[in-house]
Amino acid sequence: MNFVEAIISKRDEGTLTREQIDAFVAGAADGSLPPEQLAAMLMAICVRGMDDEETRRLTDAMLHSGETWNLAADVPGVVDKHSTGGVGDTVSLVVAPLLAAVGRPVAMMAGRGLGHSQGTLDKLEAIPGFLCHRSRSDTVNMIHRCGAAIVAQSKRIAPADRVLYGLRDITGTVPSLPLIVASIMSKKLALGAAAIVLDVKWGRGAFRHTVEEAAELAAALRGVARGMDLPCEALITDMNQPLGPFLGTACEVRAALAVLEGSGSGPLRDVSVTLARVAMELGGTDPDEAEDSLIAALRDGAARTAWDRIVEAHGGDPDPDLLAKPVSQCVVPADRSGWLVGVEAATLGWIAVDLGAGRRTRDEAIDHGAGLEVHVRIADRVESGQPLATVLVGTRPVDLDAVTARVRNAFEIADEPVDPPQLILGTIEDV
Amino acid sequence: MNFVEAIISKRDEGTLTREQIDAFVAGAADGSLPPEQLAAMLMAICVRGMDDEETRRLTDAMLHSGETWNLAADVPGVVDKHSTGGVGDTVSLVVAPLLAAVGRPVAMMAGRGLGHSQGTLDKLEAIPGFLCHRSRSDTVNMIHRCGAAIVAQSKRIAPADRVLYGLRDITGTVPSLPLIVASIMSKKLALGAAAIVLDVKWGRGAFRHTVEEAAELAAALRGVARGMDLPCEALITDMNQPLGPFLGTACEVRAALAVLEGSGSGPLRDVSVTLARVAMELGGTDPDEAEDSLIAALRDGAARTAWDRIVEAHGGDPDPDLLAKPVSQCVVPADRSGWLVGVEAATLGWIAVDLGAGRRTRDEAIDHGAGLEVHVRIADRVESGQPLATVLVGTRPVDLDAVTARVRNAFEIADEPVDPPQLILGTIEDV
Repeated sequence: MNFVEAIISKRDEGTLTREQIDAFVAGAADGSLPPEQLAAMLMAICVRGMDDEETRRLTDAMLHSGETWNLAADVPGVVDKHSTGGVGDTVSLVVAPLLAAVGRPVAMMAGRGLGHSQGTLDKLEAIPGFLCHRSRSDTVNMIHRCGAAIVAQSKRIAPADRVLYGLRDITGTVPSLPLIVASIMSKKLALGAAAIVLDVKWGRGAFRHTVEEAAELAAALRGVARGMDLPCEALITDMNQPLGPFLGTACEVRAALAVLEGSGSGPLRDVSVTLARVAMELGGTDPDEAEDSLIAALRDGAARTAWDRIVEAHGGDPDPDLLAKPVSQCVVPADRSGWLVGVEAATLGWIAVDLGAGRRTRDEAIDHGAGLEVHVRIADRVESGQPLATVLVGTRPVDLDAVTARVRNAFEIADEPVDPPQLILGTIEDV
Repeated sequence: MNFVEAIISKRDEGTLTREQIDAFVAGAADGSLPPEQLAAMLMAICVRGMDDEETRRLTDAMLHSGETWNLAADVPGVVDKHSTGGVGDTVSLVVAPLLAAVGRPVAMMAGRGLGHSQGTLDKLEAIPGFLCHRSRSDTVNMIHRCGAAIVAQSKRIAPADRVLYGLRDITGTVPSLPLIVASIMSKKLALGAAAIVLDVKWGRGAFRHTVEEAAELAAALRGVARGMDLPCEALITDMNQPLGPFLGTACEVRAALAVLEGSGSGPLRDVSVTLARVAMELGGTDPDEAEDSLIAALRDGAARTAWDRIVEAHGGDPDPDLLAKPVSQCVVPADRSGWLVGVEAATLGWIAVDLGAGRRTRDEAIDHGAGLEVHVRIADRVESGQPLATVLVGTRPVDLDAVTARVRNAFEIADEPVDPPQLILGTIEDV
């Protein structure tokens, strides 16, 4: 087939055939299509869109471009949790041990930080010895031993996505809904959990800025999963401010531990428990019973114990004292009194990246001691001089005055109060 | 600047800034932008379009990506003629000696065949010794000696166009109006004639299939030229059937000679004389006076003499007997009586390419003896058995039965007559 005809068809608002989609994905995976043709097709898809059937076929083709692990075959009932990304989003580190503690096996593929959003893989690598690069058999063995595995995206899974994702990043085709859906779901389906729960974030710290955009993505993701007979639910949650109190790697591990020890409360705990409950519901557990058992696991130390077992199974040392600490700390006080009415959440994420919690170039090293702690939440009363945030300074050179100003400017303080944002909006049917 | 932002801007229907357009063109010319980013931008432009100012800036940036010859500085009043391409379009070979014969200097840059359309460069190379690859000083000297120069597109002129044209061909972005306009006009402006006359073809043998599409292109081309203070007129002419009687290389040279010797009549002569007259009008000559002098040059042998001088100045031998001849000929008779109501002109062009008048792969050699002669025109009465066309068979292997069938099927014969198509529709204001 002539691939130029496929590009022209999509350019002119046509529907791609199964053969054209297969050729696109195979050409990306094996390098038989030049990057300029892949890029032209990506832009045509980005502008013209894809219908549900095309999106399903694209997902299916990407899924079959590499290994399919089908973990549920060896771990019945294993559940996968995926978040669309935000800041202070430490949920994966809480949900995995929480579900493991109540006997629900978990498998997740974790990624590096993306843009302003810190990556779960980077956070786990803050734990000395923790090794995420695992084969399928390693992954199955780990789940059997400790109830959960969080592994790095394998290069053998959905290799077409790796190529297309790299191209999307430099060709202005990242926000295309069908491309996002196919990228996420091809990897999830290749992992092959028995059920998947999705946390689709909306707001200033998310990649979808409105509830409508988040609901559209949630519907598309859930639709593809269910269309392939994978039990799936998607929650839409607030990301207009950092979810947990910390942005970084080691500090987010500590935030997760605080929740797992039962001492943490607030939105990170609430979202984690809700996602875990929905995961159990997908497995047939009664919602109230599920919630009770999860709360109990946090209270009685079972979740904390599960964490240690998971870390050890992954080769890591669970001693929290071994986690990197900041070289110095710098409190950023409010310069006026009033009510916190908004937070530039993405800006805080970028500041954390700059401090060391992320990579500004492909080869830059993460500084696990660096990050941010946020002390206030939207709708809080703030007095002049009260700490808004603490800058956790690592080993990267920092212009502290500039960072302090950026942090302060990310908090909007006004004379009139606002209502706190609704944390968990519910499923697509609820918004 | 971040070029991804430029791609995103165009993707989202934005207007590109001068800096963004300059970066695009410079990145194409010097290879500093990867082909996937160029391709994504080309597709975004193809789908979203460009306004007049963006098109003008794109043309200007491409024009300045290489040498600017500014021929008018050394050859005052030198005129350029450009056709958007068709079949049996031998106009360049007639107009150049015709204008030279009446003292109007001519400079043209000729290209290879494109798709179904035979190239002027290929036709000239049918003349033994004719050498089109010329430097600027060669070109100026040739015009001073013989009144005209037809040279090959220099690699040093508009190098960005060379890169972008190659990408457009494989990324489904050929038909974008601003990209077509910038590609054509950047090269014309770099050549730097004092005036330009454009022959914009419409119909089944052209790249624009409707009068409206041709008029849109004509307006855009003329608009860019005039916006850069280059006197320019664009005629819209019919390409629903081959313009001259021959499709090929050597045979088209013969067709031009027939017109130049005053013995040829018909549409090839009419369009050539009209374009030459408009060229003279742009230089200030009265239309009637221009037409009279052109007709006189055809009658009194001045045009024919100019041809010989031009061929010799380009290193060629003007002896017509040296032109390649077909190895054999095969007449294709009509298989029914009726009226010729339509011709698949592009199909005839492709048949000529397959016979040897064009390249089906980049490295294939032209067979100068091969081609087609067409004996009938739309609205002609045709009797069963009457020759429709003659296949000029060259040295390439040919399935003559299949070729004959293809040729015959390209002529539509019906029971009811139609009016002959209007050959010269006039300028944009006339359609």
